[in-house]
Amino acid sequence: MTAHTPVDTFSFTLSATDGAARTGFVSTPRGAIRTPAFMPVGTAATVKGLYFDQVKQTGADIVLANTYHLMLRPGAERIAKLGGLHSFMRWDGPILTDSGGFQVMSLSSLRKMSEQGVTFRSHVDGAYFEMSPERSVEIQGLLGADIQMQLDECVRLPCTDEEAARAMRLSLRWAERSKRAFEAQPKGRALFGIVQGGAVPALRVESARALADMDFPGYSIGGLAVGEPQEVMLAMIETVEPHLPVNKPRYLMGVGTPDDLLESVARGIDMFDCVMPTRSGRHALAFTRFGRINLKNARHADDPRPLDEESDCPALRDYSRAYLHHLVRCEEMLGSMLLTWANVHYYEQLMAGARAAIAEGRYADYMAQVKDGWARGDIPVWAG
Amino acid sequence: MTAHTPVDTFSFTLSATDGAARTGFVSTPRGAIRTPAFMPVGTAATVKGLYFDQVKQTGADIVLANTYHLMLRPGAERIAKLGGLHSFMRWDGPILTDSGGFQVMSLSSLRKMSEQGVTFRSHVDGAYFEMSPERSVEIQGLLGADIQMQLDECVRLPCTDEEAARAMRLSLRWAERSKRAFEAQPKGRALFGIVQGGAVPALRVESARALADMDFPGYSIGGLAVGEPQEVMLAMIETVEPHLPVNKPRYLMGVGTPDDLLESVARGIDMFDCVMPTRSGRHALAFTRFGRINLKNARHADDPRPLDEESDCPALRDYSRAYLHHLVRCEEMLGSMLLTWANVHYYEQLMAGARAAIAEGRYADYMAQVKDGWARGDIPVWAG
Repeated sequence: MTAHTPVDTFSFTLSATDGAARTGFVSTPRGAIRTPAFMPVGTAATVKGLYFDQVKQTGADIVLANTYHLMLRPGAERIAKLGGLHSFMRWDGPILTDSGGFQVMSLSSLRKMSEQGVTFRSHVDGAYFEMSPERSVEIQGLLGADIQMQLDECVRLPCTDEEAARAMRLSLRWAERSKRAFEAQPKGRALFGIVQGGAVPALRVESARALADMDFPGYSIGGLAVGEPQEVMLAMIETVEPHLPVNKPRYLMGVGTPDDLLESVARGIDMFDCVMPTRSGRHALAFTRFGRINLKNARHADDPRPLDEESDCPALRDYSRAYLHHLVRCEEMLGSMLLTWANVHYYEQLMAGARAAIAEGRYADYMAQVKDGWARGDIPVWAG
Repeated sequence: MTAHTPVDTFSFTLSATDGAARTGFVSTPRGAIRTPAFMPVGTAATVKGLYFDQVKQTGADIVLANTYHLMLRPGAERIAKLGGLHSFMRWDGPILTDSGGFQVMSLSSLRKMSEQGVTFRSHVDGAYFEMSPERSVEIQGLLGADIQMQLDECVRLPCTDEEAARAMRLSLRWAERSKRAFEAQPKGRALFGIVQGGAVPALRVESARALADMDFPGYSIGGLAVGEPQEVMLAMIETVEPHLPVNKPRYLMGVGTPDDLLESVARGIDMFDCVMPTRSGRHALAFTRFGRINLKNARHADDPRPLDEESDCPALRDYSRAYLHHLVRCEEMLGSMLLTWANVHYYEQLMAGARAAIAEGRYADYMAQVKDGWARGDIPVWAG
């Protein structure tokens, strides 16, 4: 298999399709990313509560890190001087960074937007920062990210069509500037353009076509999973998909639930990231073959069974529900550690199953089977 | 070596002495405990921030769990029904439990002491509990602890001689009752008597002699490391030591700093427990060959070097000070996880070094050498 041969360029290979669903791999100098891929989120250079060895063992080929958080702490220039983000956090696989724009909009204060970029104050200490398309790419380059994102403006939904159009067109101009700035970076890295346009089909199509004309090595779909119903999100994917080049990876940003992932893969998405498995793990919620299980629930207090005895993840297989419930109730770190591990493992196995199913032309069956497991619900309550 | 031969009884074997310092091993059906031994504290059935696999890898042969915390949550009867503490928390080595008395005194509210025992309200939910010598031993038995402690009354220092005498004599009467209650438990477990008597030498001697007459399989020294100067603690150990049987293990409860451990080993102590390595790890403090290192300090922000490149613990060897500093500043779980791991490893290696040195008759040199490392201090600040 060529996926693991060392390469010095970035490329995408489509191995099989099944309806709109696709499987293949992205090749990077840091290693291959099997698609569809779920990227665990390592916001501040750590996937909260996990050792990177564990992240690798779950099956993750790539992790995401947040430009906004890292530019504030410890600072991009500092990480560069320390040898880059891979060595800093001890992850030698590919890393994808966002542009920082989304967190600037959601976390910082005193924002001022202009054609040039955005100025804001840090949510940590109030320090003043400037962010432009060029600076975002420069920061991502200092971090050493293998896959980088253009700076874009992500509007909140719902919004007026005019507002969606203005932000989408600004994002297109920023895409051009990002692309020029990115040319200074070493070979083998990739910059993705981001499709915007709110919930307006015509704007989404305009954005996708304009970006496709710019010939990016990959395309993100942004501005979704921001509170809209799932059917709106899926409709937007269906709208955009025909206008994206077949031979480039497609990344749906910030999505989502296991069901969102399955439905988006069915519509041609190749890459995902979301804090859901990690954040839920810190809040006592486990994602399993049997659906979501809330370990805070007192019904687990006397249950000696693991979350899933057939799993090959120790967190799912080896620890009793009674113990997990106890750890959660006592707010012990180990509870967050184990449930985060279990959830990232579940997300990665969900994608591994999707890849195998697409390759064998049975993706619809796979989706039905997985959803059937969720619908049957958790195994019966332990009677003691 | 007979230390690892399965046994069905509890015994202590002295292998070598060097001055008052001793090395040997405690045999239990769950495995051997090499002495001098440091026991990591797993208060609520978890050594905070560590997997038990890691605890084992640091060299720990035994861990401590707190009866008070476990009787409140999840409850001793519940743990017994789930198969006991070993299986509940997934640690198959020996476990030592305290009596719960110390935490009743320091954490609970509305305490009422009598000859019979103590009643109190839970600090978690205000629930009402009764604790007697018999109930403490019953709880420890339900947990399945390999080494159990008699219920005692631990007075705060300083206190009057009368108060120290009253509490010590009550503890002796409770020792008798605990011993009788313990007879119901399976073979191979051990109950330790606890020497009390405050900072009054005559009371300490009276307590030690009376307990020795009762012929316990091991002896604890309680009521120290409660705020008194180190020299008071060491003087009390020297006072008590000649009155404890040579062929029984001696456990100094709740102690202490690395220096406390070295000095106490020199005075004939075999076993220790303390929250210091774990609690300090959650507060950015690392114990190393070079003394204590506070990772919050900004001087680490650009330092690419690990805490100790010669260590065989990944937490000390593989992660840069810059990264640890960053994790601590961002209050990331992984910072606590790594520093706790590093500290428990350091404590265990300190005891491993002590065992080897005593066996070779060079314990004084070992102490001097270790203290010299601390005194030289941390390796010079990174200049960039």
